Amino acid sequence: MTDSVKYLLEESKAPKFWYNINADLPSPPPPPLHPGTKQPAGPDDFAPLFPMGLIMQEVSTEREIEIPEPVREIYKQWRPSPLYRARRLEKYLDTPAKIYFKYEGVSPTGSHKPNTAVAQAFYNKEEGVKKIYTETGAGQWGSSLAYAGQMFGIDIEVFMVKVSFDQKPYRKFMMQSFGAKCNSSPSSLTDFGKKLLDEDPSNPGSLGIAISEAVESTVKSNGEAKYSLGSVLGHVLLHQTINGNEAILQMEQAGDYPDIIVGCTGGGSNLSGLLFPFLGQQLRGGKKIDVIACEPLSCPSFTKGKYAYDFGDMAMMTPLVKMHTLGSSFLPPANHSGGLRYHGMSYHLSHLLDLGLIRAKAYGQKECFEAGVAFAKQEGIIPAPEGNHAVKGAIDAALECKKNGESKTILFNLCGHGHFDMSAYDDYFSGNLAEDKFDKQHVDEAISKLPEIS
Amino acid sequence: MTDSVKYLLEESKAPKFWYNINADLPSPPPPPLHPGTKQPAGPDDFAPLFPMGLIMQEVSTEREIEIPEPVREIYKQWRPSPLYRARRLEKYLDTPAKIYFKYEGVSPTGSHKPNTAVAQAFYNKEEGVKKIYTETGAGQWGSSLAYAGQMFGIDIEVFMVKVSFDQKPYRKFMMQSFGAKCNSSPSSLTDFGKKLLDEDPSNPGSLGIAISEAVESTVKSNGEAKYSLGSVLGHVLLHQTINGNEAILQMEQAGDYPDIIVGCTGGGSNLSGLLFPFLGQQLRGGKKIDVIACEPLSCPSFTKGKYAYDFGDMAMMTPLVKMHTLGSSFLPPANHSGGLRYHGMSYHLSHLLDLGLIRAKAYGQKECFEAGVAFAKQEGIIPAPEGNHAVKGAIDAALECKKNGESKTILFNLCGHGHFDMSAYDDYFSGNLAEDKFDKQHVDEAISKLPEIS
Repeated sequence: MTDSVKYLLEESKAPKFWYNINADLPSPPPPPLHPGTKQPAGPDDFAPLFPMGLIMQEVSTEREIEIPEPVREIYKQWRPSPLYRARRLEKYLDTPAKIYFKYEGVSPTGSHKPNTAVAQAFYNKEEGVKKIYTETGAGQWGSSLAYAGQMFGIDIEVFMVKVSFDQKPYRKFMMQSFGAKCNSSPSSLTDFGKKLLDEDPSNPGSLGIAISEAVESTVKSNGEAKYSLGSVLGHVLLHQTINGNEAILQMEQAGDYPDIIVGCTGGGSNLSGLLFPFLGQQLRGGKKIDVIACEPLSCPSFTKGKYAYDFGDMAMMTPLVKMHTLGSSFLPPANHSGGLRYHGMSYHLSHLLDLGLIRAKAYGQKECFEAGVAFAKQEGIIPAPEGNHAVKGAIDAALECKKNGESKTILFNLCGHGHFDMSAYDDYFSGNLAEDKFDKQHVDEAISKLPEIS
Repeated sequence: MTDSVKYLLEESKAPKFWYNINADLPSPPPPPLHPGTKQPAGPDDFAPLFPMGLIMQEVSTEREIEIPEPVREIYKQWRPSPLYRARRLEKYLDTPAKIYFKYEGVSPTGSHKPNTAVAQAFYNKEEGVKKIYTETGAGQWGSSLAYAGQMFGIDIEVFMVKVSFDQKPYRKFMMQSFGAKCNSSPSSLTDFGKKLLDEDPSNPGSLGIAISEAVESTVKSNGEAKYSLGSVLGHVLLHQTINGNEAILQMEQAGDYPDIIVGCTGGGSNLSGLLFPFLGQQLRGGKKIDVIACEPLSCPSFTKGKYAYDFGDMAMMTPLVKMHTLGSSFLPPANHSGGLRYHGMSYHLSHLLDLGLIRAKAYGQKECFEAGVAFAKQEGIIPAPEGNHAVKGAIDAALECKKNGESKTILFNLCGHGHFDMSAYDDYFSGNLAEDKFDKQHVDEAISKLPEIS
């Protein structure tokens, strides 16, 4: 009982580089296509939306990309995040497996999102951008970009999915605390939003709709504003690798190395951030890791989606990327894991699944909350509902080890705390948690509408 | 900009002792009295409520008390907590002062409370106690004892002030996540609660009432259960000194030492925990520190209360202690800082104020929220409303330094985050924050009812 449970890193040992998986992939992922011409999109095609610093990261093949000093200064407010050994959970499960988790809930907004928000705000600031539009589901991303904008003096305007705007207002107040403007989406501020409200004034909104509104606002700003995305794209995943770079050093401190890496996947940035630096070592001849991506049964893009070119948003304004998708017209059903309710997936992770370098599992939300509560009772941290998927995946892997008598080392990413999701826990305890349903008919329809790419 | 902003301590360097200020006080604080005989209370008088391990700590004069190894093991889940240098805030204020803060929001329940909850659960467990009753206002203490009980396998039953139980249910769900039972107070589970509900079925409850219900339940358990208090008493303050012991080492890392220490005060444990180890150094011949206790204008026991013997609860069941009090029959008005709404004060801090070793300031909640939002925008942490009082006190001290051109070192305790208090921030932003009022007539009445002690 006297062994360490927590591995910290001093500020002075914090990694100064992000890791770029493009440098080590056995083949590059299929390129994004222009939404109009359906030809490979070049940097100029992205220029109306993103600053060039981020666009060049999207296509870079340099293995290590230096983290600018002002970004590292802001990272210091919470990074390096701790690596924990879940010794009490191991004992509770009576497993020979060793369970480690990296805890991203220590950030200002309680999730991994600020890792890229701060970087994106910096590169926008560098190019003189004064305002950024974005979207948010339950608010993790919106509050993180609000924080980052505040750090660099950039105005942030967020389109927040209406149902969350109304029912989960706490992250909205957090955005306000960080000085950002937050609109309910669909809104009457955009043509797309107005069209939807005309058709149905009670439209509950979706991430796909909110992205469309943020992109439209950006395009209409005539170069005054840029757009920012909190997951899916390559530069977002790149910024998240600060977490895996730290974890490599912390696992060294622990004298251990993962056999299994587990993470939850919505757009993919949270798993990727922890995974890629380790996967890079594997691709350069290191140890093979069993990677388990955990997604919700109700929005299972990896396990039930099609690997095909699709749009990132509902209004079909974004570039097309090849990804595991349920179809951009698919509206994911209600689920407490707002951060996992997205029709598509990072094109990098989709490529890795296609190459057989990772595997995926889908879980129902009840079994995930059950795992999350067991974890909280042992480790004292109440996970975000999204993170409960990773907890469930890690517990399953540990119980598999118990069955087989194997003392494997499991590392999972706990993407955030559940402080703003306690009503979801109330639903769980009071038996009001909705059963997950996979709406096959709806998905089949949405997939049938996928753009045809020759 | 490349200097450190965060000072961590490795697990291996974590303090192994609590600091006991009784060893260094120039005179002992006046002793607690038995509520019936009004004679000094001995250990046996406390035995129905507390395990002997805690009672002996209350009267110990040993300077260093070893933290039991199982308690240190649990502390590792979040301790040592970080010490921050608020460099961005300094720059924003344009002050020559250096501002440091110790951040206790990293604990499982987001405040300093688990420092003593874990210790109390341990000593109860040692003596075979299977159940503990306690009270809670907004839920910081109840959730912390729930967590601690879960860690040591002790049943926890909490009486939660009704108005918070109904309006701020999130910490209630947290207690449930940690396996505790939570009752709305006043309840029909106790004679005192029933009496109050008969008189007024819509009684909103108060901390004084909830304490009475928890104490009554304990006494009626015939030795089966014990009671636990989250502030005020000597052993509680003792356990909180883990924070100051860490801060001494972290200030050494920073190569600095506080001229001024600031904390918010409700019952007093949060300021004491940071302060006492430094104050002990002063009392043993070290540097004189200017100590500023910050309390709410609406519940100003230090600045408007009387230094007199009083009960800790409304039903007058607890021992009498000499403290700055607004009268145990005083019902503090609504204020978002639930943790500061208590009629009395730690008898140790009251003694220190009486000796002139600390001073106190009262602040209104609007100016405290204003300070808290400015802090959040610079440092990325949204403070609990209670903590905003310390932030306000520290900012005031830093501006005083600016006025006088003094580069003093200010250290304040940020007792927790505001994740469960975002509706209070909403009230602030939307202009709905109630003006503080000091109800002099009500306080005068309550003070006139204080017990007469010869």
